[in-house]
Amino acid sequence: MSNLVNAVHDKINADLDQAIARLQTLLRIPSVSTDPAYANDVRRCAEHITDDLKSIGLEATCHDTIGHPMILATDDSAGPDAPRVLYYGHYDVQPPEPFDEWNHPPFDAEIVDGPNGKRIVARGAADDKGQLMTFIEAIRAWKDTYESLPVRVVILLEGEEESGSESLVPFLHKHKDELQADTCIVCDTGMWDPETPAITSRLRGLVYIEATLHGPTHDLHSGSYGGAVVNPANALTEILGQLHDKDGKIQIEGFYDDVEEVSTEQIAQWNSLGDADALTLESSGSKATFGEQGFSTLERLWSRPTCDINGLRAGYQGEGAKTVIGATATAKISCRLVAHQKPKAIEKALFAFLEERTPVGCHWELKSFGTAPAISVPTQSPWLSAASNALTSVFPKPAVLIGTGGSIPVVGEFQEILGIDAVMVGFSLDDDLIHAPNEKFDIDCFHRGMLAQASILEAYANVHV
Amino acid sequence: MSNLVNAVHDKINADLDQAIARLQTLLRIPSVSTDPAYANDVRRCAEHITDDLKSIGLEATCHDTIGHPMILATDDSAGPDAPRVLYYGHYDVQPPEPFDEWNHPPFDAEIVDGPNGKRIVARGAADDKGQLMTFIEAIRAWKDTYESLPVRVVILLEGEEESGSESLVPFLHKHKDELQADTCIVCDTGMWDPETPAITSRLRGLVYIEATLHGPTHDLHSGSYGGAVVNPANALTEILGQLHDKDGKIQIEGFYDDVEEVSTEQIAQWNSLGDADALTLESSGSKATFGEQGFSTLERLWSRPTCDINGLRAGYQGEGAKTVIGATATAKISCRLVAHQKPKAIEKALFAFLEERTPVGCHWELKSFGTAPAISVPTQSPWLSAASNALTSVFPKPAVLIGTGGSIPVVGEFQEILGIDAVMVGFSLDDDLIHAPNEKFDIDCFHRGMLAQASILEAYANVHV
Repeated sequence: MSNLVNAVHDKINADLDQAIARLQTLLRIPSVSTDPAYANDVRRCAEHITDDLKSIGLEATCHDTIGHPMILATDDSAGPDAPRVLYYGHYDVQPPEPFDEWNHPPFDAEIVDGPNGKRIVARGAADDKGQLMTFIEAIRAWKDTYESLPVRVVILLEGEEESGSESLVPFLHKHKDELQADTCIVCDTGMWDPETPAITSRLRGLVYIEATLHGPTHDLHSGSYGGAVVNPANALTEILGQLHDKDGKIQIEGFYDDVEEVSTEQIAQWNSLGDADALTLESSGSKATFGEQGFSTLERLWSRPTCDINGLRAGYQGEGAKTVIGATATAKISCRLVAHQKPKAIEKALFAFLEERTPVGCHWELKSFGTAPAISVPTQSPWLSAASNALTSVFPKPAVLIGTGGSIPVVGEFQEILGIDAVMVGFSLDDDLIHAPNEKFDIDCFHRGMLAQASILEAYANVHV
Repeated sequence: MSNLVNAVHDKINADLDQAIARLQTLLRIPSVSTDPAYANDVRRCAEHITDDLKSIGLEATCHDTIGHPMILATDDSAGPDAPRVLYYGHYDVQPPEPFDEWNHPPFDAEIVDGPNGKRIVARGAADDKGQLMTFIEAIRAWKDTYESLPVRVVILLEGEEESGSESLVPFLHKHKDELQADTCIVCDTGMWDPETPAITSRLRGLVYIEATLHGPTHDLHSGSYGGAVVNPANALTEILGQLHDKDGKIQIEGFYDDVEEVSTEQIAQWNSLGDADALTLESSGSKATFGEQGFSTLERLWSRPTCDINGLRAGYQGEGAKTVIGATATAKISCRLVAHQKPKAIEKALFAFLEERTPVGCHWELKSFGTAPAISVPTQSPWLSAASNALTSVFPKPAVLIGTGGSIPVVGEFQEILGIDAVMVGFSLDDDLIHAPNEKFDIDCFHRGMLAQASILEAYANVHV
């Protein structure tokens, strides 16, 4: 069948400029899901993609949820005997703040030159609009070339991935039949390096909370009251400063109870991938690696849990000096979890850690932003092998098997509710600055990603299980 | 001479509504000195007051400085043999943020009902526009009644009190001759309670810094990097959490070396003033007092140094969850100082405290927002006694001698550069919410303050030194 995909690749190559333009249009819709101010944009984005999928010839519906819309689209042109493949991506994006650190506006989607050729700079370029467009464009190219696809396809695009996915589980239950598939491609992960594609088999889970410590009923003059009443900002730092010990071990009660030990073989395989320290330092702009004593960088990222403060807010934050004791102090705190840790139990233990340290006369306001377990997927399936071969066919170097420090809750829900193990294929690079100012996606990654997705469609037609 | 002041009091009583209207006009100019966005408003405020002083018949000039303007005004109508009195106030105000916590807009200066009668709600109502207008209105009433004042007067109004007073010392040196006086009234302090006026003899000093910890060069995804590089927000809380020990003692090297021991007699006098704990809890809206072990609330406020975090800013601060590791984390930190502590040495030790704890691969950006020493003024002077008697004559209860936890750097500069000990007379109450949302000034305090200032003018004409 290799003749078939060659024509699709030709189509993708010929249509590259139009595919880039379509991605730019998508990136210019600021679909920030966590901030209610953008709710209309999130909906507009969902409707835009739904229309695009219909224009390709798919049956596509934009479903209302209790949160942001879910897009569900199907194509059965391959006939009833062909394998059915579920594709997942998310069209929502992280908040763009801080705006003034972007060299190009986050929703202009400008094409600029970079060390690896042209890149598209925008919030969501790599996470995840540029990635979900790799399979949409591959499907478009197949349909344009042959009018039908080699496999049956069902596409699920979520609008709440960056904000707790509250609608996901109810939606999966409600649409379980429509979502049945033989395998699943989740396209929201990265490559090992620009030449080496990767399939991700391990994801960390997540607990994310917001904790506000309330002290006096109003802001106070630090001269009139300093030293005589609790300053919530002082107290918050004293409490959060106890989250780690000197060796980087997290001090939340029972935090490590269920943490899985990783095999020596697995660690050896990871450490054979290359110089992870150098990649991490270069892409993060950090001057030193850091973390839990006794573990390598890849072990820390792929197999060890964390506790990170993602936001601090207290008192006066403007220019200059204000001698104020703020009435409250707030922290956003998240834990990345590894296999077998129980998210709800960790969240409860984190809340308890804070409550046990409540200063006299103060109280906490504690919010949960959702939890997700860590995930492992089987690495021996024919779907994973077929995808790996397809990736290898369009990149300079063979595909490798990696973990990731991030969380993709849907992978666990697909396992649990639909009974499907995902194959995590993605084309992001470590320096894509996802969740940060100046997020970008290399045109080369986008282009090869489309070619790889086209090859996976063909390869999956030949998998017999 | 009591007949003379009675007519002035009558004038003040008759003119009360107009005086309130003039204060409202002044409060509606948002003269926030620390934020460059308000620079034009600060200037407009200075020019407005200068014009007002001229309209009363004073020689008044609005002087440019390297920062905000200084207002200098004189009246020699009392003749060359009369005592010369220097008046000090500041026309700049604290930032109004957070705006959404104000029940009335901070620069509308609305008159509303309160438990002690009407009050004027505005940023700067009590600190310090309402207070400086007590002596301006008293002078206006004397001039309106008699065309001349009983003493010679020089007025200095500063526009940088809330932002480090960088122009103050050069200005005092340059205008030393014009500022020469026999005594000085600094009007920026409080009463003991609504019925009991007070003269303040002790002020705490101040060190105020901003510290930004820099880690990675850009914000990072907490999944992709969490646990493998320094999170500046984690590190900042770990470092600031070490500022105090379990007993509330500050851990900065040498911090207490020069702290003056207060006499048992002095402490007994303070503790005889009334229930300071109850006043502090009620006015702060705190549920418990707190602080350095072994000291009472008034000792903590008037005789012990502090270290307070006045602002925290790191990572994502908007609504919802963002899984980010911020590239930087910032704290605004201030220390209130007591007699004999050396501000520059304390600032240096605070910087060293931070530097010594710099995480690997990180660096600090450290800013100073100015320092001021703690101050004591002599309590045996005839000027202080005369002012005390004048206060007692217009309030229900006799004037008392107190300390304050706040800082008024100009008092030290007047001692050092002009050789004048200030008499600190003020009419603010503990519940005036200075530096906080909903700052207010009771009309009753404003009214009695004007009457008291009129009586002080008369009393000072009779002091012979």
